[in-house]
Amino acid sequence: MAEYPVELSAEECLKRLGTHSIGRVVFCSGRSPQVYPVNFALHKGSIVFKTSPYGPLAALHTRPGEVAFEVDELDPENQRGWSVIARGEAEPVDGTETGELAALRMIEPWAAGARTLHIRITPHQLTGRHFGGRH
Amino acid sequence: MAEYPVELSAEECLKRLGTHSIGRVVFCSGRSPQVYPVNFALHKGSIVFKTSPYGPLAALHTRPGEVAFEVDELDPENQRGWSVIARGEAEPVDGTETGELAALRMIEPWAAGARTLHIRITPHQLTGRHFGGRH
Repeated sequence: MAEYPVELSAEECLKRLGTHSIGRVVFCSGRSPQVYPVNFALHKGSIVFKTSPYGPLAALHTRPGEVAFEVDELDPENQRGWSVIARGEAEPVDGTETGELAALRMIEPWAAGARTLHIRITPHQLTGRHFGGRH
Repeated sequence: MAEYPVELSAEECLKRLGTHSIGRVVFCSGRSPQVYPVNFALHKGSIVFKTSPYGPLAALHTRPGEVAFEVDELDPENQRGWSVIARGEAEPVDGTETGELAALRMIEPWAAGARTLHIRITPHQLTGRHFGGRH
């Protein structure tokens, strides 16, 4: 029998973010919802990813308003899974920041093309749910 | 060496939507981006899912503006994957529509709770990309 969803603590959310390398950047362009999968690293509690200076994520840090970042693990076979959502403002990372660059080496994008822009989302809110089956 | 992303045709996007049962509903609540994983069925070219009449997706079909629905398959080990995004307006499904109900039986939510509201997104746009490695 299905179980009710269980809310995850912020600490548990951060832990799950740290064990994954793929997430989805979600934001609003006007009233139009945008969603882009990226590979990322968690660095000092912030989500860091690289993107092209000419792509749709380039202007992210100049937009007002919130960015959501979603990571999940969903298992259709066993009908259970979890989803974590981090919310925060996006900001550019100064490429000379040594610590950040160390993390960024972990997130070389899979696709070719110059992704020289580094973006950081520092979550002000972390929420997550586990649903279906055992936890 | 990484390859450049490849755009998928609308036909290919629809085909990939049809082979998956989990996607992410993305919309804007004001300027706040929202993202919720759901299990769904593709029925006559529309995305159909069930939700609680008391939950955050309940009012989706009364909101003006676009809803995005994202499905992906991402393989960190081999650093390749694809993502498909359907865009359209959300609308309630009349539960008495026999064809729809047949599809809805495939999308019994994993989590417990009354999900008596059926929502349909008929895409007016389908876009997708394959990135990294071979296609």
